[in-house]
Amino acid sequence: MQSTCPLSALRNLLKARELDGMLIPRADAHQSEDCAPHDNKLEFISGFTGSAGLALILADRALLFVDGRYQVQARHQVDLEAFEIHHLHEEPIHLWLRDNLPAGKRIAFEPLLMVNSQYENLRASGCDLVAVNDDPLNDIWPARPAAPCGLIKSMPDEISGESSANKRQRVAAALTAAGADYLALTLPDNIAWLLNVRGSDIAMNPVPHSFALVKNNGDIEWFVAREKLHQLSDETLSQVTLASPEDFLSRCEAIAADKRIWLDGDYAPVAVRFAVEAGHGRVIWQPDPITLMKANKNEVELAGYRASHIDDGAAWVNFLAWLSHEVPLREAAGNPITELEAQEKQLEFRKLCDNFQQQSFSTISAAGSNAAMCHYHSSPETNHAITGHEFYLNDSGGQYTNGTTDATRTLSFGQVDAQRRLHYTAVLKGFLALITLQFPQGAQGHQLDAFARRPLWELGLDYDHGTGHGVGHNLLIHENPHRMAKKVNPWPLLPGNILTIEPGYYLDGSHGIRIENQVEVVASQPGFCKFASLTLIPVDLSAVDLSLLNEQEIAWLDEYHLWVRETLSPRVSSEARPWLFEATAPVRARLAG
Amino acid sequence: MQSTCPLSALRNLLKARELDGMLIPRADAHQSEDCAPHDNKLEFISGFTGSAGLALILADRALLFVDGRYQVQARHQVDLEAFEIHHLHEEPIHLWLRDNLPAGKRIAFEPLLMVNSQYENLRASGCDLVAVNDDPLNDIWPARPAAPCGLIKSMPDEISGESSANKRQRVAAALTAAGADYLALTLPDNIAWLLNVRGSDIAMNPVPHSFALVKNNGDIEWFVAREKLHQLSDETLSQVTLASPEDFLSRCEAIAADKRIWLDGDYAPVAVRFAVEAGHGRVIWQPDPITLMKANKNEVELAGYRASHIDDGAAWVNFLAWLSHEVPLREAAGNPITELEAQEKQLEFRKLCDNFQQQSFSTISAAGSNAAMCHYHSSPETNHAITGHEFYLNDSGGQYTNGTTDATRTLSFGQVDAQRRLHYTAVLKGFLALITLQFPQGAQGHQLDAFARRPLWELGLDYDHGTGHGVGHNLLIHENPHRMAKKVNPWPLLPGNILTIEPGYYLDGSHGIRIENQVEVVASQPGFCKFASLTLIPVDLSAVDLSLLNEQEIAWLDEYHLWVRETLSPRVSSEARPWLFEATAPVRARLAG
Repeated sequence: MQSTCPLSALRNLLKARELDGMLIPRADAHQSEDCAPHDNKLEFISGFTGSAGLALILADRALLFVDGRYQVQARHQVDLEAFEIHHLHEEPIHLWLRDNLPAGKRIAFEPLLMVNSQYENLRASGCDLVAVNDDPLNDIWPARPAAPCGLIKSMPDEISGESSANKRQRVAAALTAAGADYLALTLPDNIAWLLNVRGSDIAMNPVPHSFALVKNNGDIEWFVAREKLHQLSDETLSQVTLASPEDFLSRCEAIAADKRIWLDGDYAPVAVRFAVEAGHGRVIWQPDPITLMKANKNEVELAGYRASHIDDGAAWVNFLAWLSHEVPLREAAGNPITELEAQEKQLEFRKLCDNFQQQSFSTISAAGSNAAMCHYHSSPETNHAITGHEFYLNDSGGQYTNGTTDATRTLSFGQVDAQRRLHYTAVLKGFLALITLQFPQGAQGHQLDAFARRPLWELGLDYDHGTGHGVGHNLLIHENPHRMAKKVNPWPLLPGNILTIEPGYYLDGSHGIRIENQVEVVASQPGFCKFASLTLIPVDLSAVDLSLLNEQEIAWLDEYHLWVRETLSPRVSSEARPWLFEATAPVRARLAG
Repeated sequence: MQSTCPLSALRNLLKARELDGMLIPRADAHQSEDCAPHDNKLEFISGFTGSAGLALILADRALLFVDGRYQVQARHQVDLEAFEIHHLHEEPIHLWLRDNLPAGKRIAFEPLLMVNSQYENLRASGCDLVAVNDDPLNDIWPARPAAPCGLIKSMPDEISGESSANKRQRVAAALTAAGADYLALTLPDNIAWLLNVRGSDIAMNPVPHSFALVKNNGDIEWFVAREKLHQLSDETLSQVTLASPEDFLSRCEAIAADKRIWLDGDYAPVAVRFAVEAGHGRVIWQPDPITLMKANKNEVELAGYRASHIDDGAAWVNFLAWLSHEVPLREAAGNPITELEAQEKQLEFRKLCDNFQQQSFSTISAAGSNAAMCHYHSSPETNHAITGHEFYLNDSGGQYTNGTTDATRTLSFGQVDAQRRLHYTAVLKGFLALITLQFPQGAQGHQLDAFARRPLWELGLDYDHGTGHGVGHNLLIHENPHRMAKKVNPWPLLPGNILTIEPGYYLDGSHGIRIENQVEVVASQPGFCKFASLTLIPVDLSAVDLSLLNEQEIAWLDEYHLWVRETLSPRVSSEARPWLFEATAPVRARLAG
C-alpha cells in the first residue's frame, strides 16, 4: 500500500495504467436504486453517501456531480479541498468533459456500471473512453465490504399466480416475434419475476443480484453465485442451467456469432453490448419485455396485494391509534414521542402480522419542518418531537409474502393554522381529483399527473416530485415502467397495473404534507379505467377546510372510510377500534359535530 | 401522349426510366396543410381530394394510403379497380414496403416533397430509393393548373411590432449560438414572419411560397418568383438578395462547402439535405428557430389579436342574433335556413368590418348529424336545414389585417333532449376546466389537455382530436409548435403564446358539439400562467344543465359574458343588441327565470 487515502491510491493506479482520469458512478451492474456497500465505490472514493452521483477523478482535480437534492449533503460529506461539487443535471458530465478537457484524454470507465445511453453521451464528448473490466478499485480498497450473498428463495406459484415455465414461454414468444435469438437479463426484479424467486442481497429489496440469458426456445442460463442457492427448490433449479456471474460476459460473447441479442439500452450495462459485438453478434435495442409483462399483475398477484394491504392497514390503524393517544399525553408530560420512537413502534405493529417480512423501504417519520425535506430519514441528530402544533408525516410500507405496500399519511394532533389548513386541503383535493378519475384505457401517466396538482396550482404552489410510481409484487418499491409525473411516460395504463398516488406540498423550514394511497388500475365503463384503492388507512380530516370539499370529494371520502372501517374493525386491536371508528366517521357527521 | 389515364401514363414513364414504382405524397415543398391545385399530384393520379395521403404506384399495383378520417371518402373518390386503399398509420408505407416488396426494388420519390424523417423511415425499408428532381408528372399532366403566383404585400412594422431587420438579427444570433453558418427556410409562415410580408398563394393562407437562406451575419437570400413582388415596398426588397425558387437547391449546394447548414428535420425537404451533402456541407438538425420566436407574440401583435377579435365578435353577434331570429320563423314558414345560407350570411357580416380580409379557414357550418363529422364542410348535396330540434355547429374565423380569429359555437334554437343536454354540459365543463386553469409557466400542452376531457371521461366518452392549437398573427390558422392534445408536445407554454381551447363531442349519425375560444397565455402569480380569452362570443347556455355547474364555472361564465356584453354592445347592430343582452345574462338570472 502506497497510501491510505483512496484518492491518492487511485491516482497512482491511473498513472501506472497511463490513464488521465476515471469515472466512478454510484451504480452496480444491475442499476439498483439501493447500492450494496460492496458496490458503493463512489462513497469509498469521495465519502458521499447519497443515492445518486458520479465522480470524475483526474490527476490534478476531482469532481463530484450530484443532483439538486444532494448539493448540501455532498458539501458536508466530502473533503472540499480535494473535491469540487458540480450539478449532475445542470452540468452533465459529458458536456463538462467536452468543454473542459482537451480531446483525446484517456478516461477510464467500468462498462458494467454504465448503460448504453450514458456511454453514447460520453462518447460524444471527445474523450478517449477506456473500458476497464478488472474492477481496479478492488486493489486499493483493503476494507472493502464483501459482495452481498443473500439467500434466494422460491416464490410459490400459489403466490406468483403463474409458473416460471409459463412465463418463460411467454418471454420466448416475445423473442421470436422480435426476431431475437437471446434476451440478456440484468435487472434483478425481472429475473426474480421470471424465475419465481426472491433474493436478499440488499435490505428491503427482495431481489437477487445475478444475470440471465433467455434463448428464444425458453432455455435459461442463470449466472448466479452458488452460495445463494441453498434454499432453492429442486424444481426451480431443474429449470435453469447454472453458471457463475463472472462468466456472464464471456458467455454473451461466446453465443453471439450471427445471433441477435435483445438488450435494454436504458438498463443493460454497456459491457454486454461490448461482449455481443466482440462475438460478432447484433444487438436489438428494446426495453426488456419482462418489464411490461411484470407490470401487468395477474389475478393471484392482485389478490395478494389486496390481502397484504389489509394486514398493513391493520398495523397502520393500531399504530395511529396508539400515536393519537400518546402524543398529547407524552407532550403534556414533557417527554414527547419522537420520530424514531414512532417508527420503531410502527415496525412492532407491522411485525405482529405473520406475512410481514420486512419494511419495503426506509420509513420517513418526520415531524414539523423535517417533513419539508422530501427524502428525510430520521437520525439521532435530527430526531424531532411529535407534538400537537406541528404536522407529522409518515411514509412507510412493508414487504409481505404476498405483496408490497407503500402509503403516506400526514397527521395533526392539535390546532392547525390557516396556512397549513389551506395547504393540507389543497393536497387532499389533488389526491381526490386523481383517485376519483375515470380515464381511457391506455392513457399515459403524464396525461393524468396534473389532476393531482391543480388545487395547488390554483394557489400558485406545486411539488417537485412525481405523483405516482409502480410497486412490485413482493419486489421493488419503485417498479418500472409506469410513472405518473410531469415527465413523459410512454407506457399505457391498463387494468392490473399497480401505482401510488401521492401528491404533496413542502414549505422549507416549516412543514411537509403528503397523502399517498397505493391503487390498482381496474376496468370500468367500456374502454375506460379507474383507480381502486389498495391502501386501507383513514385519511386525517382534522386539518381539512371541509367547506372547500365538493360533493364528489365527500362521497369518495365517506365511501372509502366506510370500506376501511368495515374491513379493518375485525382486525385491529380493541384499543384501536374506537379510534378507527372516529377516524372513519362520515364528513357530514364532522360538519354537524 | 400515349394515354389519357394518369396511372397508365405514369407507368409508362416509370418503365422508360427503369423504375419499379413511385411514391406520390399529398405534399408541396413547404409541407403546407392546404395544397395548391398545381401541387396536388395525389389528386391527379388517384382522384382522392383529402388533405393527407400517399400513393405508391407500382407496375402492377397501385396503393393509396389514407388515415382514419378518409377511409370512406377515398373509397368513393378513387377507382377501386385500379387502387387498393390502405391505412396511413396502421400500416405505415415503410413497413408495407419492407414486408411486401423484394429488397432492391427501385422506388422513385421527389425529395422536395418529403422531409428527412420520412426519408429515413423509407430508407430502412430495404428499397432502393431513387430521387427524381425533374418533376416527372409534369410531362403526363396536360391540364395541370398553373403554379400559384399570389402577390406579396409588406406587413407594416406598426402591425408586426418588430422590424424585419431586428428579427433578422435575432435569427443571426441564434445561428451563431448554434455554430451554424446558414439557416435554410422552407416554411412559408416563417419566411413571412421574418421578412414582414404576407402572401396569397393559397386562399385563406396569407403566406408566400418561397425559400430563403439566412446567413449568420443576418444576410438573407430570398428565392421567390419575381411576379409576386409588384406590390412589395422598396424597403422590404432592399433588405434581401432576390433569386429564383428554381435556384434554391443549387445555391444550397454552392454555399455548403465546409459550412454548417441548419435544417428542420420535420419540415425541410430532404432535397435540401441532399444539396448540402452534395456540396460537402454539414447539416445541423434542429427545429427552425423562427417557429418558436414567432409563437412568442409581441405586445403589438397581441394588441392586434385583441382588436381583431372585437371586430370578429361583433360580426358573430350580428350573425347569431339574425340566426336566432330567423331560424324559428323560417322553419315555421317551411323554408328553413340551411347551412350554406347561414355561412354566406356570416361572411356578409364579417365583410362589414374594414380590417377583414378573408376567412381564415373553410367555415364549418353543420346542422344535426352533419356536425358529428369533425371535418365536415357543407355542399349543395349535404346542405342541411337549421331547425329548432337539432344542434347547429359553426366553426369559423377571419383573417384581419391585425390578427387571425378561430372560434366555434354550438347553438340550440329549441328543445334539447336529455342526452344532448348531458353531452353539451360535459363539453362546456371541459372547456371551463381548461380555460380557468392556472398552470406553471413552461407547462406543456399534453400536461393540460385532459382537463378539457375529464367531464366526458366521467361519462365514458371522449373526442378524437386535439384540444387546442396555435394560431398565427395574420398567418396560418394552425400554427406550430404549440398544441394541447394527448400527443406529447415538448414546447413550454409561456406568456404571449396564442392557442385555441376547443373540446367537443361527436355522436355518429346524431349530433356534434364543440365550444372553442381563442386565448392568449398571460402571466399570473409568480411562476404561473393563465389563459385570457381573445374570443368575444356569447356561449349558448340554453342546452346546459345549469345544476351541474359549480361556483367557479358560473363565476367564469358571468364574468366572461359581462365582458362580452360591455365590449360588444357599442359595436353591434341595434337589431342585434337585445339578443346580445339576453345571451350574456348572468347564470343566476337564468336559474331565477
